[in-house]
Amino acid sequence: MTDFSPGLAGIPAARSKVSYLDGSKGLLEYRGIPLDILAQKSHFIETAYLLLFGNLPSASQLEKFDHDIRMHRRIKYRIVDLIKCLPESGHPMDALQASVAALGMFYPAKDVLDPEIQYLSAVRLIAKLPTMIAAYARLRRGDDHVQPRDDLSFAENFLYMLTEKVPDKVMSDIFDTCLILHTEHTMNASTFSGLVTASTLSDPYTVVSSAIGTLMGPLHGGANEQVLTMLSEIGTVDKVRPYIEAKVRAKEKIMGLGHRVYKVKDPRAIILQELAKRLFEHLGTSPLYEIAVEVEKVGEEFLSDKKVYANVDFYSGILYQKMGIETDFFTPIFAMARVTGWLAHAFEQVKDNHIFRPREIYEGEHGRPYISISDR
Amino acid sequence: MTDFSPGLAGIPAARSKVSYLDGSKGLLEYRGIPLDILAQKSHFIETAYLLLFGNLPSASQLEKFDHDIRMHRRIKYRIVDLIKCLPESGHPMDALQASVAALGMFYPAKDVLDPEIQYLSAVRLIAKLPTMIAAYARLRRGDDHVQPRDDLSFAENFLYMLTEKVPDKVMSDIFDTCLILHTEHTMNASTFSGLVTASTLSDPYTVVSSAIGTLMGPLHGGANEQVLTMLSEIGTVDKVRPYIEAKVRAKEKIMGLGHRVYKVKDPRAIILQELAKRLFEHLGTSPLYEIAVEVEKVGEEFLSDKKVYANVDFYSGILYQKMGIETDFFTPIFAMARVTGWLAHAFEQVKDNHIFRPREIYEGEHGRPYISISDR
Repeated sequence: MTDFSPGLAGIPAARSKVSYLDGSKGLLEYRGIPLDILAQKSHFIETAYLLLFGNLPSASQLEKFDHDIRMHRRIKYRIVDLIKCLPESGHPMDALQASVAALGMFYPAKDVLDPEIQYLSAVRLIAKLPTMIAAYARLRRGDDHVQPRDDLSFAENFLYMLTEKVPDKVMSDIFDTCLILHTEHTMNASTFSGLVTASTLSDPYTVVSSAIGTLMGPLHGGANEQVLTMLSEIGTVDKVRPYIEAKVRAKEKIMGLGHRVYKVKDPRAIILQELAKRLFEHLGTSPLYEIAVEVEKVGEEFLSDKKVYANVDFYSGILYQKMGIETDFFTPIFAMARVTGWLAHAFEQVKDNHIFRPREIYEGEHGRPYISISDR
Repeated sequence: MTDFSPGLAGIPAARSKVSYLDGSKGLLEYRGIPLDILAQKSHFIETAYLLLFGNLPSASQLEKFDHDIRMHRRIKYRIVDLIKCLPESGHPMDALQASVAALGMFYPAKDVLDPEIQYLSAVRLIAKLPTMIAAYARLRRGDDHVQPRDDLSFAENFLYMLTEKVPDKVMSDIFDTCLILHTEHTMNASTFSGLVTASTLSDPYTVVSSAIGTLMGPLHGGANEQVLTMLSEIGTVDKVRPYIEAKVRAKEKIMGLGHRVYKVKDPRAIILQELAKRLFEHLGTSPLYEIAVEVEKVGEEFLSDKKVYANVDFYSGILYQKMGIETDFFTPIFAMARVTGWLAHAFEQVKDNHIFRPREIYEGEHGRPYISISDR
């Protein structure tokens, strides 16, 4: 009999070869390859292939995978009509959860162990998530949605569908690297909920819909929105120090600083900061960036003995904002990348499957009587 | 460091007061009250209140709860329009997952710990799930959906929305008891995935949407459909013995017999068999019932030493079929009842919350090089 560990902290829930994380060293590997190397040399589609299938693709494998994803970018008009039924005031993550669940109805996946079905559902989900996200972004303000273009790269096409403008190469390259950074991160809550759903042999669309639901919780995917809110509230660089001091005194969490696992600076935050600098050199700085750098500096002064450093959410929001992306679309972009990690784990799960049925510790009463309503 | 237990079997994932199960005795208690007593004396709405709030309601609490659920049965025309966008050939569980995710967008639930928000989201979900399920059943064959009627009981109203006919009291009472039997069953996979989603503080609609995705997997919710398929395949009573013998020889699973936890006959199966008898006395027998009784008899002969007995899925399919319900709607009906159990567990989770982040055992390589594409 095992002791109860809240949130299953420290309890192994799966065997996996997808990614590895050493929080004390700030090391994150995808399929054994360090993330910083992939961020420099790879691109999102190649990294997605690596995560899903275990190895870097050959030239012909990559060509096919990339081509298949380009060809599957369109969504059926019924999905567009469905998105039009969603309230404009809702959260885009809810819209995405609903759209993905609906998507699965068009592509019944009977045998989730069939490699062809796995390949095709991964292609469709990677290809169509950006289209559904961009469609909701435009339709909710009454604009027509923009059809995807198959001559554009994955990153270019997404930004194009949002704005009807093809972004320049600096911006689309930076956005592509952001996606690489968000594809996978071992056994987090959304990946785990996808695993639990996959363990009943539900189809990949359903698995992703569950994981999206878990990612949208404010304790999980919403933090980069909150960083932006905090930076705006602080307002100017000179107000950073009093703000941090007050937070530290009150023992309150500072958004974007600290991580359950990392005891050094999140390797993704290091790369994101570099990307942010590049973007600001190209487009002019963001006033929030100066504040962010100061928050990180003062934060380290007060909190580095507690091993609290900037995490992945700290710079990503400022970056996306500078690209003209609305705040509530930051988490959908996270999902657009993370879908590859969710599927990689789900495919591992079904290969050696045991339905999840943990135990619970019953703390209630026994043998209570049914008292008739007149006597209650 | 804990040993790896596939599917987290035996590992406690939560403390709970919702329900208790003793598989060796065939005992199932909801909030401490034995299920067989509730099946006799209670009704679905009262049992739902008991599960959600911990105690049987007083007369005035019950009156309010029942009234609130009646008043929230309608769904917005946009949800109806959304259901019309779904393909007719899809599975109703996918339709339900999409509709519930969309539903949440109309009712933003910011603070999931607020008892008022919990109450209202429970009322809405219990009230509107049947309406959305019945709407898809009718709309997918091109028929208009039927507006709910607030003068009918919960069970009456659902059967009315499916068929446009108010069922007689025998049928609606039996259907109501079926719902009681399906409301809750400790920490199964769907409840657990709802818990994982709830642990990021996602809203109740999102939690239920995740749980629906997990319930729809063929290893979880789909078994009563498969029992019916099996009984139809067997065809006549005299073919039961050779069928069972062949299955036992081949060491194959017989649908509807056996359960992970129960080592005696599932208490729900005992009640369902009684309900089936009552329904057949009322409406005339079902040829499948005779076959089912024989399957159970012969099955016990061969398998009772392995403690394999009829489970909840064994008689429920035959019952629902006799009521004129289409086979692929059996699992949505399961969901319509189980939503109360899912929410009861989710509300427990957020009260003393720890985000789920189990460990994984990494079995892959380290420090693999990035080989450039020309050299792969």
